Amino acid sequence: MVKTIHKRLLATTGIVAMSMAMSASAETLDEVMARRGLTQQDLVSAAKTYTPTGGRDEFIVFSSGGQSGQIMVYGVPSMRILKYVSVFTPEPWQGYGFDEESKAILEQGKVDGREIQWGDTHHPAITETNGDVDGEYLFINDKSAPRIGVVSLHDFETQQIVVNPILQSEHGGTFVTPNSEYVIEAAQYPGVLGRGYAPLSQFNEKFRGAVTYWKFNREKGRIEPENSFSIELPPYSQDLSDAGKAVSDGWSFTNSFCAERYVGGIESGRPPFEAGCSQNDTDYLHIINWKKAEEVYKAGKVTMINDHPVISMDTAIAEGLVFLVAEPKSPHGVDVSPDGKYIIVGGKLDTQGSVYSFEKIKAAIDAGKFSGTDPYGIPVIAMEDAIHKQVGLGLGPLHTQYDSKPCVVYTSLYVDSQVAKWDYCEGKVLDKISIHYNIGHLVAMEGETVNPKGKYLIALNKLAIDRFNPVGPLHPQNHQLIDISGDKMELLYDMPVPLGEPHYATAISAEKLQPLVRYKYGTNSRTGDRHEGAVRPGQERIERDGTNVKVYMTAIRSHFTPEIVEVNEGDTVEFIITNSERAEDETHGFAVSTYNVNLSLEPGKTATAKIVADKPGVFSYYCTEFCSALHLEMTGFLAVRPKGYVEEAGAMAEGQTYSKDDYNKQTANNVATQEVIDSVVTYITERNFKDFPEVVSLVEDATDQLNFAAEAKAKAEEAAGKEDWQNATLWAGQWWQYQVKAADIGLRAKTFLDEHGAVKQ
Amino acid sequence: MVKTIHKRLLATTGIVAMSMAMSASAETLDEVMARRGLTQQDLVSAAKTYTPTGGRDEFIVFSSGGQSGQIMVYGVPSMRILKYVSVFTPEPWQGYGFDEESKAILEQGKVDGREIQWGDTHHPAITETNGDVDGEYLFINDKSAPRIGVVSLHDFETQQIVVNPILQSEHGGTFVTPNSEYVIEAAQYPGVLGRGYAPLSQFNEKFRGAVTYWKFNREKGRIEPENSFSIELPPYSQDLSDAGKAVSDGWSFTNSFCAERYVGGIESGRPPFEAGCSQNDTDYLHIINWKKAEEVYKAGKVTMINDHPVISMDTAIAEGLVFLVAEPKSPHGVDVSPDGKYIIVGGKLDTQGSVYSFEKIKAAIDAGKFSGTDPYGIPVIAMEDAIHKQVGLGLGPLHTQYDSKPCVVYTSLYVDSQVAKWDYCEGKVLDKISIHYNIGHLVAMEGETVNPKGKYLIALNKLAIDRFNPVGPLHPQNHQLIDISGDKMELLYDMPVPLGEPHYATAISAEKLQPLVRYKYGTNSRTGDRHEGAVRPGQERIERDGTNVKVYMTAIRSHFTPEIVEVNEGDTVEFIITNSERAEDETHGFAVSTYNVNLSLEPGKTATAKIVADKPGVFSYYCTEFCSALHLEMTGFLAVRPKGYVEEAGAMAEGQTYSKDDYNKQTANNVATQEVIDSVVTYITERNFKDFPEVVSLVEDATDQLNFAAEAKAKAEEAAGKEDWQNATLWAGQWWQYQVKAADIGLRAKTFLDEHGAVKQ
Repeated sequence: MVKTIHKRLLATTGIVAMSMAMSASAETLDEVMARRGLTQQDLVSAAKTYTPTGGRDEFIVFSSGGQSGQIMVYGVPSMRILKYVSVFTPEPWQGYGFDEESKAILEQGKVDGREIQWGDTHHPAITETNGDVDGEYLFINDKSAPRIGVVSLHDFETQQIVVNPILQSEHGGTFVTPNSEYVIEAAQYPGVLGRGYAPLSQFNEKFRGAVTYWKFNREKGRIEPENSFSIELPPYSQDLSDAGKAVSDGWSFTNSFCAERYVGGIESGRPPFEAGCSQNDTDYLHIINWKKAEEVYKAGKVTMINDHPVISMDTAIAEGLVFLVAEPKSPHGVDVSPDGKYIIVGGKLDTQGSVYSFEKIKAAIDAGKFSGTDPYGIPVIAMEDAIHKQVGLGLGPLHTQYDSKPCVVYTSLYVDSQVAKWDYCEGKVLDKISIHYNIGHLVAMEGETVNPKGKYLIALNKLAIDRFNPVGPLHPQNHQLIDISGDKMELLYDMPVPLGEPHYATAISAEKLQPLVRYKYGTNSRTGDRHEGAVRPGQERIERDGTNVKVYMTAIRSHFTPEIVEVNEGDTVEFIITNSERAEDETHGFAVSTYNVNLSLEPGKTATAKIVADKPGVFSYYCTEFCSALHLEMTGFLAVRPKGYVEEAGAMAEGQTYSKDDYNKQTANNVATQEVIDSVVTYITERNFKDFPEVVSLVEDATDQLNFAAEAKAKAEEAAGKEDWQNATLWAGQWWQYQVKAADIGLRAKTFLDEHGAVKQ
Repeated sequence: MVKTIHKRLLATTGIVAMSMAMSASAETLDEVMARRGLTQQDLVSAAKTYTPTGGRDEFIVFSSGGQSGQIMVYGVPSMRILKYVSVFTPEPWQGYGFDEESKAILEQGKVDGREIQWGDTHHPAITETNGDVDGEYLFINDKSAPRIGVVSLHDFETQQIVVNPILQSEHGGTFVTPNSEYVIEAAQYPGVLGRGYAPLSQFNEKFRGAVTYWKFNREKGRIEPENSFSIELPPYSQDLSDAGKAVSDGWSFTNSFCAERYVGGIESGRPPFEAGCSQNDTDYLHIINWKKAEEVYKAGKVTMINDHPVISMDTAIAEGLVFLVAEPKSPHGVDVSPDGKYIIVGGKLDTQGSVYSFEKIKAAIDAGKFSGTDPYGIPVIAMEDAIHKQVGLGLGPLHTQYDSKPCVVYTSLYVDSQVAKWDYCEGKVLDKISIHYNIGHLVAMEGETVNPKGKYLIALNKLAIDRFNPVGPLHPQNHQLIDISGDKMELLYDMPVPLGEPHYATAISAEKLQPLVRYKYGTNSRTGDRHEGAVRPGQERIERDGTNVKVYMTAIRSHFTPEIVEVNEGDTVEFIITNSERAEDETHGFAVSTYNVNLSLEPGKTATAKIVADKPGVFSYYCTEFCSALHLEMTGFLAVRPKGYVEEAGAMAEGQTYSKDDYNKQTANNVATQEVIDSVVTYITERNFKDFPEVVSLVEDATDQLNFAAEAKAKAEEAAGKEDWQNATLWAGQWWQYQVKAADIGLRAKTFLDEHGAVKQ
């Protein structure tokens, strides 16, 4: 084996070069196109999206995971899904809901004491600075239970869940104000504020909507419920929201449907909700002065419901905080222009894009020019006093995104299964493209910010029907990538969505994301603080307090310390484990057989697996991430002694015994291996490896392994000195294992240098 | 709006054609390549993988989802992920673990009474007929808790979980015999059979491995634990398995590591497991005559452990069921050749591919030619009496897959991060390709069957490191697609794995999969039987039995029946809902706000959401799949009256009232809409739509909607006859809603006909 390591090290460059040189395609491009039925246009689309190994995407999309309760992260233009981040639903790969640290986050998400293990995620939003997305944090709402999750984009982990104290359901979250002062969450189906009971016969009087402004503390990366407030609204079903920006900063806009306030009852002969909620030609857009509302809240003019401050409708009216304007039937998108001057709304049961002018709205408010009030006394601005343009787009206009080109927008048309490109300043349609099928929301690159990037648009289609290979009655959805760089839209790529039904997505330039590759040693990733149970190698220990056993543990390629843990039936055992690796991507897992625990321990992370040893037995624990060649050997035993069990005397009987010859054979092997390693070290250090941060980190990692090798060597030699050939041979074996790991890392470093044009110095 | 529907219907073809004609790329292909830095070779790779909208993949891969406890399904060559199928972990999008029907499946997965909400899935296997994969069912194991999941490929749903009655952990599952008579599951870390306790000092005497043969009933699509058996094995850590085929049919092969039977204890100064388990140069390949074992089991020569029949080692030896042969150090793949004549094993700490000859093995067994026995008395065949060839491949050979070309195989090299292509008949290396990085298993198209398809190979890399845009310390893994059609392997595509760490995958020709697009009306998808709670439209009802309330419900675009459900605090409420749609992809969901329930109701499915109404309040329920333009209006209320609450008198106050004028306006609109619909119907029926099954199904669906429209029309006219303008107007609105749905379906049918070259007749 040593000889082969050596040959391999020396030959690496040669083999790769040979492989590259001879790997010209046997088939010509024309032959491939003919075989696969591709047109020239397909080939251009392929070239616009195909990303060779190691290539980077230009934009990253954060898409709601719908009923999966997760966030889906993918790259544009490659349309490759990079990660699912769990927010409301436990997910064992990430250890989310399976380690004690993340269970504490899910615990925050209990509603009225009820444990909820899923979420219906709808609208993600990235933190903004001056109206531009900044890539620091991500918010996502749960429609089913009114909650907001906060995900750190430093490590792509969920770090907080807040429960709305007054709403029964919500939808219009999350949208952020231009400096992420507040995260906006609006109700969906009306309820009794505070989640109390009232008979449906008193719907108009007792049921209400509301919008909540959650205060975000950027420094802590946490929402502060104690500094948040809500405004009571009529029992229209509030829907999406958007914050004003630039000239309209300080205002927010929330649309609604079922302004008819209809209560169905098809079972008792009443027409169903869908009839009663879609009878009128218009619903209401709510226009809210949130900066003024903040002052009113700070002045204490609030009613406390479930310890949460609510500005009543009467106060909101008296203080001039809320206004209404008619908007087209059953709208589902309200989108403020980059300059903050316009607000575009589509009505799913209408045919037009309606462009509201903030200047006109403001003028009407300032002049006190209202067409009347709604049944609750809220001033209503006449539509003609607020509208800049209405443009016929097609059937089912739903959501609008802004291009980098001035005045250009894209609106999804649900019923027509099209996207309309149009000019909202002049009010004319520029182009249309058919998509497959039934588009809901759409997302342009940073298309909701003060500085849209254009280039790409993604249609979030609700149905896929015949677009993909069949996978049973439950179909994937279809995100279609559209090139918007030219005058005409071009369909580039169909991406099946394999999990959940995304509702809404938001995109950011990839360069704005600078996540960690490792944690500071001993980090509790859910709090960001040092974990109180973190230990360094050598500090591992087992502590018992009555029936509570704490195992302070480390994990490194390829063993846990400790490897044997003995407890008594009925004990509660906490494994508090720190991954002591520093190498990028060297994640370890931890599971105990037949128990409901799994940890994902990225380099530097500390996490806790807690179990109740309720049954006697000997349970294997093991690393659940394929971390190294000896990954399967990265294991241990939790021995749970039966109650009252008396241990029989007797030392461990070795399965296999070793002699002096075995020791000599192993050490001779190790000496030869060291020569090989030395040759790699020479190869690397003779080159400008310090110009490559990735290689510097690999070299540090290899150095660690060689230090461990030296420790194992010392133990082997100590045992040999005592003629304990059993331990001498095995420690010599361990010394060799560390050498192999160092060689593996060295090889990776050498390959990287070769592939990235390092030069001999 | 009617006018626009009309225009849209007539113009559809024109708009699409215009869009296609003018959508030539503004950028030329060369410009795109220059901008994106693509080489000519990249372009060929792009052409080999890019799949235009509506295109189909040639192969479907079922990949383990690792610690996510799921199955990942993706297409080749597009490498697009089509679906995650939940097996061991609850997943709300699919309703898995959130409806009562699937909870019953997860309940089967309890181990010794312990609820386990995740699985460490490793090795999927598709049912086989005569050694060829047939696409009917899929099996997947859980390493952490010794379990097998059974997924139906008719609907891609998990329908059974079986718990191994004797193992503490497992790994070597699932592998099927050539006609899926048995599903093979081998132990991993040794334990006391039956999961009892023994001190680790008695490891050699009391700890054991085993292999279980699970009987599969093809007709029922279920494993039959009552017809399954196990064979006791020594406490070597058994690993992967494979079933013999053709000449070796009736035999199975299971490898192992840590044949040293080492028990670590680094915390007490003992060398760690990784040293003691990797000291010897060889481990043991187990060779088992399962057909003979089946006879022994049927003859009753078994010991019952936890009511499960186990053939003891002594019996296995006496009956000639189990043999051993040395295999290279820490192997992790054992792969039988398509003709069943050879078995290839790689050792992760070795450098060779070892080709065993079944003929030689059989000859040695028949001749009783053994080199001795292992410590437990099992006959050991000398390696030289079993080996056909050993071929130096590189560092860390792990897993081998077979090409369609005779004698050609591919072996993953974990440490070298390469794939070796080699000839196992002649014993020579043909080609090598570098992958990124640390490849575990690999999968060739049907590469484990009697009839491999060649063409593509996928490297299941364990680390991605620098291949993708960064997404935090926890990286995706990287599945790399390799073209193996030519003499040289060519790397085509990098696919990030966004969820879980796949261990192993299996691929099948796409044409072999013929899943359902809808269920027979009222199906319980987890049993395949008619659901006892299924109702047809018109049969909906609410039944109360003490505090148990059953709501027999239907769901259709865009309402539930019933819409209002009133219960008392403390009641248990079951919503048993049937999706009465027939249209492909018309899935509805169902959630009750702040409750831990979500259903996925594909067309025809019946499922149950069960809640305890433990708190008074008025809870919205709603459809969680964006099913139609009025999806948000597909809602209802669960009113939970407080204990002792006395309802106040008083009818529902309408939020909005309607007059005769409103009725007349709505009906005039409806009449105009009907003319439009008639024109679509004419357009379709004048064409050869019956040649397109997809369109026939759409026409049926539209006809349904029009029948509903007629019913609503009758109700409207009845109310108008009584001068009840409120109900007359709203039912007329509902009549229009059905018309719009019919028009939507009609449009889709028309577009399909236009795009698929239907002709006027």
